[in-house]
Amino acid sequence: MSLSHLSHLDCPRCGRQYDADVINNLCECGSPLLARYDLASITTRPGDIAARPHTMWRYHEVLPVRERVISLGEGMTPLLPLQRLGLELGVPGLLMKDDGLIPTGSFKARGAAVGVSRAAELGVSAFAMPSNGNAASAWAAYGARAGLRSVVAMPVDAPSITRTETVISGAQLYLVRGHIGDAGRMIADLIARSGGALFDASTLKEPYRIEGKKTMGYEIIEQLGWRCPDVIVYPTGGGVGLIGIYKALQEMQELGWISGPLPRLVAVQSSGCAPIVQAFEAGKRTAEQWPDPRTVAFGLTVPKPLGDFLILDALYATKGTAVAVDDTDTVATQARCAQLEGAFVCPEGAATLAAVRKLRESGWLAENHRVVVLNTGAGMKYPFEVSAPAFDPADTLPG
Amino acid sequence: MSLSHLSHLDCPRCGRQYDADVINNLCECGSPLLARYDLASITTRPGDIAARPHTMWRYHEVLPVRERVISLGEGMTPLLPLQRLGLELGVPGLLMKDDGLIPTGSFKARGAAVGVSRAAELGVSAFAMPSNGNAASAWAAYGARAGLRSVVAMPVDAPSITRTETVISGAQLYLVRGHIGDAGRMIADLIARSGGALFDASTLKEPYRIEGKKTMGYEIIEQLGWRCPDVIVYPTGGGVGLIGIYKALQEMQELGWISGPLPRLVAVQSSGCAPIVQAFEAGKRTAEQWPDPRTVAFGLTVPKPLGDFLILDALYATKGTAVAVDDTDTVATQARCAQLEGAFVCPEGAATLAAVRKLRESGWLAENHRVVVLNTGAGMKYPFEVSAPAFDPADTLPG
Repeated sequence: MSLSHLSHLDCPRCGRQYDADVINNLCECGSPLLARYDLASITTRPGDIAARPHTMWRYHEVLPVRERVISLGEGMTPLLPLQRLGLELGVPGLLMKDDGLIPTGSFKARGAAVGVSRAAELGVSAFAMPSNGNAASAWAAYGARAGLRSVVAMPVDAPSITRTETVISGAQLYLVRGHIGDAGRMIADLIARSGGALFDASTLKEPYRIEGKKTMGYEIIEQLGWRCPDVIVYPTGGGVGLIGIYKALQEMQELGWISGPLPRLVAVQSSGCAPIVQAFEAGKRTAEQWPDPRTVAFGLTVPKPLGDFLILDALYATKGTAVAVDDTDTVATQARCAQLEGAFVCPEGAATLAAVRKLRESGWLAENHRVVVLNTGAGMKYPFEVSAPAFDPADTLPG
Repeated sequence: MSLSHLSHLDCPRCGRQYDADVINNLCECGSPLLARYDLASITTRPGDIAARPHTMWRYHEVLPVRERVISLGEGMTPLLPLQRLGLELGVPGLLMKDDGLIPTGSFKARGAAVGVSRAAELGVSAFAMPSNGNAASAWAAYGARAGLRSVVAMPVDAPSITRTETVISGAQLYLVRGHIGDAGRMIADLIARSGGALFDASTLKEPYRIEGKKTMGYEIIEQLGWRCPDVIVYPTGGGVGLIGIYKALQEMQELGWISGPLPRLVAVQSSGCAPIVQAFEAGKRTAEQWPDPRTVAFGLTVPKPLGDFLILDALYATKGTAVAVDDTDTVATQARCAQLEGAFVCPEGAATLAAVRKLRESGWLAENHRVVVLNTGAGMKYPFEVSAPAFDPADTLPG
């Protein structure tokens, strides 16, 4: 018996349909493909889910893996109240979905768990992809667990811990003196030369990582007692998580698991790389390539996301918005969150908190809004030098 | 209504009893104190626990916090099958409790969550402690969330990521050019000079972190369907987790939640610092100070644990054993686990896997044994340099 109610893939741009049980990448028209399910055949109710194993696979009907799940125990990360920081930001009911507590320490694990599981059951034995670091470490880990060979290219500036993680899992790692766009072109060339030996696992070029990412949406809703928050604030690089959360919300509506208005979705970027914010403010449906992208929130360094039109659709459809924050605010908010809440979030997560402050100050957010921010990874993956006085054992410590 | 059935503290060495609702450190006789509960008054059955929130606080009756839990969502970490590595080690049913997936990325979070919560509700407003790194980052994080001031001394050689974590949470960090014993003496002196302003939160000098650590035992048993494994393998520095797991097993026996023989407990140390193994092999009840402790598994660098007699008692009582592994085996097994299982474990966790190999080779473990090893932290907290070739964007990647 299949775990999944997957029916087919379709193109959100041109509408073409594809068989889901063979290997697919992009639509002929160049758009990412989305997985579709026979939702009408699903009789599961929210109450049935409570007793299931505490991982993201509790939503298996709406995940594409039919038989064999490759799991490291991912999902059902905490939805933490940030009461003290929320008070300071002007939104006392602030909640944070903490995807630092997941295998490989980043939300990329969700996409990798589904993407690798599905690739393996469709017969893939080797894959290649570009990455800003965290996707590489996640895909390398799940790839190792599935027994797949993996090849990754990442910018030399990507967080160094992700190199260790990628290599220790046995992946072939190439460093690129450039940004993720450069790495992407080089990997595409490598795949083209491989004669079908390497599956293209690049973001949105394979259709299933988004299905893993969407579980953040299912979990937030379940953890709130199957009720929607007013706003979900998401740090947007490639934007797969935002697209996934919006897809999850639509599916839950169709399943009758939620009712009423959907949460307003907010895309947060850095002022050093804000193609989605620029497009949103101009009311456009696609983004322009951002020149010379730079930010401390390295995962946001995506100059033109392949899914730009899907991200912007989700913002417009939910009456959401897009906000750029400065790196100085991101860094200061990261420290403030640790000091007040004990949560050491990654810079991308800190950017969402800085955005909450901006949105509250502008009046877009109200004090009584129920706001959920996404922390997409553990702050410890981005260590920095701190100063601390050193002493000899014979010394006396000051007070 | 109190969450807890805590009744009093007692001394496992001399039997003296203490009021649990005032601040306590060691017994007058110098022994650590243990928390005791009115177990007979607990009517909860294992079946009642399934529906509770998915954190370690689901066992609140046997945890000492009466009113206010300081939580970052800790506990109920995955119990992962390591099928491929287990096959290679000769124990195909091998399972790993993965405490890398916990706030601050180490099992120290369990002790800190309970220790800080209890200290805060007993009126402590500032604490001090020595640490090999991970305890500092955990106590600093929970201390920040509780609004407590914290002071920590750690060896300069402690993992550098833990410095970042400790400082960003707002703790006062002192580095010591020595080992944890030196840091401990300096902190003890500082506390003595503080005139009661600083609570001594040193390992086993405060009675409650062990209560947090013991939840690993409750969780393993619950995750196995309230059945005991044959063997639990634990990396032993200060040994608080092993003492805690043994205490949990005894409590569950008394509560009638488990029956039959207890799992055999195994203490794993490094051949560069193995005071417990030395004592166990000599049949002694306490350990000797280990001269010049050195190992890559930094958390095992404890030359003479304060709870040595409790650790050794647990090993003798459960017909367990103690094993020392070489650093070279630990490092090789860490990589092997990542390559076969996708799990990047900390060196201390890797040492338990290396110990499984030794115990299987010696015949102490049988092929059909159900063995649970503890991975006490995320491997990413101990990054190391890896080599990867670098390319310019105009280059062609090799196959």
